[in-house]
Amino acid sequence: MVYSLDEHGDRVVKIVVPPGVTIDHVPGGITAPRGFRVAACASGIKKAGGFDLALIVSDAPASAAGVFTTNKAQAAPVRISREHLAASGGHASAIIVNSGCANACTGPEGLAVARSSADFVASAIGCRADHVLVASTGVIGVQLDVDKIRKGAAMAARALSRDAHHQAALAIMTTDREPKETAVRVTTPAGAFHIGGIAKGAGMIEPHMATMLGFLTTDALVDPSVLRRALVDAVEVTFNAISVDGDTSTNDTVFLLASGASTVVVDDGAYQALVAGLIEVCGMLARAIVRGGEGATKLVSITASGAATPGDAKRAAQVIASSLLVKTAIHGGDPNWGRLVAAAGRAGVAFDIDRVQVRVGPIVLFSDGVPYDDRAPEAAVYLTGSEIDIEVNLGGGGSCAATVWTCDLSAEYVKINGAYRT
Amino acid sequence: MVYSLDEHGDRVVKIVVPPGVTIDHVPGGITAPRGFRVAACASGIKKAGGFDLALIVSDAPASAAGVFTTNKAQAAPVRISREHLAASGGHASAIIVNSGCANACTGPEGLAVARSSADFVASAIGCRADHVLVASTGVIGVQLDVDKIRKGAAMAARALSRDAHHQAALAIMTTDREPKETAVRVTTPAGAFHIGGIAKGAGMIEPHMATMLGFLTTDALVDPSVLRRALVDAVEVTFNAISVDGDTSTNDTVFLLASGASTVVVDDGAYQALVAGLIEVCGMLARAIVRGGEGATKLVSITASGAATPGDAKRAAQVIASSLLVKTAIHGGDPNWGRLVAAAGRAGVAFDIDRVQVRVGPIVLFSDGVPYDDRAPEAAVYLTGSEIDIEVNLGGGGSCAATVWTCDLSAEYVKINGAYRT
Repeated sequence: MVYSLDEHGDRVVKIVVPPGVTIDHVPGGITAPRGFRVAACASGIKKAGGFDLALIVSDAPASAAGVFTTNKAQAAPVRISREHLAASGGHASAIIVNSGCANACTGPEGLAVARSSADFVASAIGCRADHVLVASTGVIGVQLDVDKIRKGAAMAARALSRDAHHQAALAIMTTDREPKETAVRVTTPAGAFHIGGIAKGAGMIEPHMATMLGFLTTDALVDPSVLRRALVDAVEVTFNAISVDGDTSTNDTVFLLASGASTVVVDDGAYQALVAGLIEVCGMLARAIVRGGEGATKLVSITASGAATPGDAKRAAQVIASSLLVKTAIHGGDPNWGRLVAAAGRAGVAFDIDRVQVRVGPIVLFSDGVPYDDRAPEAAVYLTGSEIDIEVNLGGGGSCAATVWTCDLSAEYVKINGAYRT
Repeated sequence: MVYSLDEHGDRVVKIVVPPGVTIDHVPGGITAPRGFRVAACASGIKKAGGFDLALIVSDAPASAAGVFTTNKAQAAPVRISREHLAASGGHASAIIVNSGCANACTGPEGLAVARSSADFVASAIGCRADHVLVASTGVIGVQLDVDKIRKGAAMAARALSRDAHHQAALAIMTTDREPKETAVRVTTPAGAFHIGGIAKGAGMIEPHMATMLGFLTTDALVDPSVLRRALVDAVEVTFNAISVDGDTSTNDTVFLLASGASTVVVDDGAYQALVAGLIEVCGMLARAIVRGGEGATKLVSITASGAATPGDAKRAAQVIASSLLVKTAIHGGDPNWGRLVAAAGRAGVAFDIDRVQVRVGPIVLFSDGVPYDDRAPEAAVYLTGSEIDIEVNLGGGGSCAATVWTCDLSAEYVKINGAYRT
């Protein structure tokens, strides 16, 4: 399998699962990799009760990497975690996450609470404060109760185990319909290592890394600089290739910790195996986020092909995937290829209307300037499915392609988001 | 009144209604200016029947200007009208418009039909074919019936009058809830001239000029090059400053014809008076389009202020105005300033979260990092109104501002667009 990666348009990397490497799904979520323990608790931050705090701890200091929202309104935990990763040179021992309060737009007081959260964990498990990463999700503009975090961190630190991975997935949810966790074993000629992950999604899903919370662990032995590059490459084609509503949040974060407990060294030689494994884990989580998007009833894969450059392909796929007219048509089961063409046409990329081709599932509806409307009923039947695959060849004079996952737009989305706080 | 205009970021123009100039609303729509006659007829293109073809004729060859969709999937009438304006050097005698069929994505056959439409009108009224402009709106990917256009053009040419302006506004409608027409008299020290306009909107509303159909007439005496500049300047702050769903169409067009029948010369000296009059007419029509947006219940004015540049201000206002989370919150009457801040933060413009201020109507909800949630109930009451005014000061280190008009997003929008063709 080949992935073409285009980070900020500066770099294009192809990822191929190398010969002799296999990737298999395994149980265990974020504690499938060795060297990690987790805990979840109900700290009282969520008014409705239930798990709202998760703690992920590496038995020894781990290599650590983070990717953060590009939104300029960055929440306090994002600012503190950036500081800590810079100060530690890409190392961490723990991640503390709360749901129910985003600690965003909370001014100096919010920054102080995020800093205290790291201090509480550092005291409880015995590590440096800058070896603790912090993440929050929930309502914006409300102060995070520092006492609840203090008590929750202490409670979680006492409950750490290899069994609580599913509770951790539950504890980071907000309006998600289901918890999201997955894990794989990557077998290489040098030995096997594991990658596990949990994520939360729902609203405000859109590139660039500005999408959701994701926490990844691996027991591969990886240098921080290689780990960071691998995370960026994997995120670009997974978490940064999904779109629910085009909004990006103040808090979105993906962290990756590498414990090294497998003793399998990932250097430049095994790099492709690590990224391929990360893409498998992140891709599963990213698609689960879209499938669970607010009001979503269909997972839609939009591929833009025939593009002049990888950047053109990604841009066109994103514009099509975020078009309200496209998303409502898919929701209504209407094979309206005209809206797909119109969305591609406004993406601002190389495009030739006389060479465009639109495919909905296996059915070509428009090709080289000619509509095939007699095939519309067949396409309408295809659109009744819950997983939809659409390709628009841009006729852009190249052979580059990119895929973005999105969901349909339903009246339910409007209902959920029109009454979020009331 | 001052308007700051930023065309493609290259040029910033301030428009002030000059001393001694007054602008008054008058009846008569597009035949308020002298020198024009119009007709509307039911040509049978709309399956449901009713007016679906309008003909606008200048008694003598007029100066003409057009602004077209920036979508690369350009419909046949857009391509033909561009050709004609180029061939005639900015002159035209007539505009033929049909609703019910967009003649977009229709290949060479569609181009031939658009060309024939101009030929029919040229024969019927006795003018050059390249002095006829063409516009279509309706379903994409269906061929326009050339026989219906032939008969409709002949019928309309026989019915031309100064009384049919309202019928013309009706004939260009698709899913619009109401016809849109307006006219003003601009009184200058050198004499008075008139500007009239009709428009159709509904879905696929978004900059850049890629929004809808608009037809403007004036009896000012204006050179084609000045006319074009005036149209671009007026469109930038009106039709290009509205957003319904972020989609742009294959067909969107605004034409402006100047008959000169008032004998009031508009040269560089009177330029500001002409643009101010155009802004009044185009602004009325543009806001009517938003108010009549599919499923819209509120007209929302979003001003981004405190921006470093006019481009930053426009960009931020557009991003906020097209945020689904913002539009659904307004629909639900939720004074969710966090979504406004988050949308501004992802606009990619100079922004300082510690200096941002959010105002909903007269109520400041967030300022300099501090939320004022005790004012939320008051803001919720304000949001029950049908005209909403919101300002986000970006804290971007400048004093530039821009306003974009948008509407709320309702479940009704999804319903309308999920079942457009079925």
